[in-house]
Amino acid sequence: MTKNFKITIEYDGSRYHGWQRQKKDCSIQDEIEKALKKMTSCKVSLIGSGRTDAGVHAAGQVANFKCDTRLEPEAFFMGLNSLLPEDIIIKDCKSVGMAFHARYDARSKVYHYKILNRAVPAAVGRQYSWFLRKALDRQKMRAAIAHIIGRHDFKAFEGAGSPRQNTTREVFSAELIEHEGGTLIFQIEADGFLRYMVRNLVGTLVDVGFGKITPADFKDILDSGDRSQAGATAPARGLTLIRVNY
Amino acid sequence: MTKNFKITIEYDGSRYHGWQRQKKDCSIQDEIEKALKKMTSCKVSLIGSGRTDAGVHAAGQVANFKCDTRLEPEAFFMGLNSLLPEDIIIKDCKSVGMAFHARYDARSKVYHYKILNRAVPAAVGRQYSWFLRKALDRQKMRAAIAHIIGRHDFKAFEGAGSPRQNTTREVFSAELIEHEGGTLIFQIEADGFLRYMVRNLVGTLVDVGFGKITPADFKDILDSGDRSQAGATAPARGLTLIRVNY
Repeated sequence: MTKNFKITIEYDGSRYHGWQRQKKDCSIQDEIEKALKKMTSCKVSLIGSGRTDAGVHAAGQVANFKCDTRLEPEAFFMGLNSLLPEDIIIKDCKSVGMAFHARYDARSKVYHYKILNRAVPAAVGRQYSWFLRKALDRQKMRAAIAHIIGRHDFKAFEGAGSPRQNTTREVFSAELIEHEGGTLIFQIEADGFLRYMVRNLVGTLVDVGFGKITPADFKDILDSGDRSQAGATAPARGLTLIRVNY
Repeated sequence: MTKNFKITIEYDGSRYHGWQRQKKDCSIQDEIEKALKKMTSCKVSLIGSGRTDAGVHAAGQVANFKCDTRLEPEAFFMGLNSLLPEDIIIKDCKSVGMAFHARYDARSKVYHYKILNRAVPAAVGRQYSWFLRKALDRQKMRAAIAHIIGRHDFKAFEGAGSPRQNTTREVFSAELIEHEGGTLIFQIEADGFLRYMVRNLVGTLVDVGFGKITPADFKDILDSGDRSQAGATAPARGLTLIRVNY
């Protein structure tokens, strides 16, 4: 009997060329599909909620796969975790209705981008943040962040070379959370994200924080829909897909 | 002119055989002394606030060194950070009075021990916590923790093979902090620590959390002064020296 399984995945993306299966390089999807093949002896296709780029991490990526099997979710949960490398963990495995589709059914996603804003780089956990020495003006960054909340065309923050027909997305919430020791978390929830959107937003917000542009300039860039006006793409290692909501 | 410098150090201890200089294996002290030698062309002896064991991390270890040099603290700060490997960071360098001694003058130290208590191990940051699958009873652990606050003989929690004359220490504060996602932080501040003391306390607190022993048994072990009654030593990777107070 064909069943549909929903899995929630945590991974450290440092070693991987992203979520998506690649011809040559190793990917998260590829590792999980290989493990599923070992368990079921069938070729199983894993549908992720969306791609994450090379070096990006996840605390709660979601995917589904269909498989003609007698195995129960618990067996996949145990089996996958024993087969997968230690930087990929299956946090949960559930049986879901055949109609469930990890990408189409996602209502929103939450991302964190971590910046370390202090005099010196991190020694502990250095693969999980973007180090910036010069002090960021949090207040100005927050003023800029206010402009992205709501429904907007995010074309100015889309990565080059991967244009979408529809570049309008709704940002449900976005905020800058401060922790002690100079750690800043940019947290954003939206109904969907364009390629590089969070990292391009962060790169441009950092320009605001450094005083290179004003929060009003940031709004103009958003309104312009022109990628060439936005800031640089922030490095992958600071980004984590926290949660996918259905 | 001989000067005395106080440095604050962050390190990821995963790769090292601890703080202390070793004959063969690489240590944090050794790496910093080598860098100081490159900068000053003299053999400089680094005095740490205390040792940390192999695999233990630090967010704020403190050390001092004396050196006949024209260099200012800023030069050591910049120079050491450019010479040291990326898992050792000098967070601060200050000129201090000749009498300052990083070990003798320390008034207290704060340690964190991180436990990940959930169904599956960590993929992200797995070198910084101790994974325990079975649910820990936080309330019982807190009841046990209450017994260690104040002045006590901690002989029962001292590592074998490194006996001290005086095993009495004063614990100024100790608590169990809960974060989302199953992360527990045992935070302790004391005027000093015996070898393996935090890790032996944590190992025994985990026995309490699992219901193997009661909080009252925990107090009896403390009072007994008998190491053989205490629990196992918790793994090094969960432990971080947060701060040394002077």
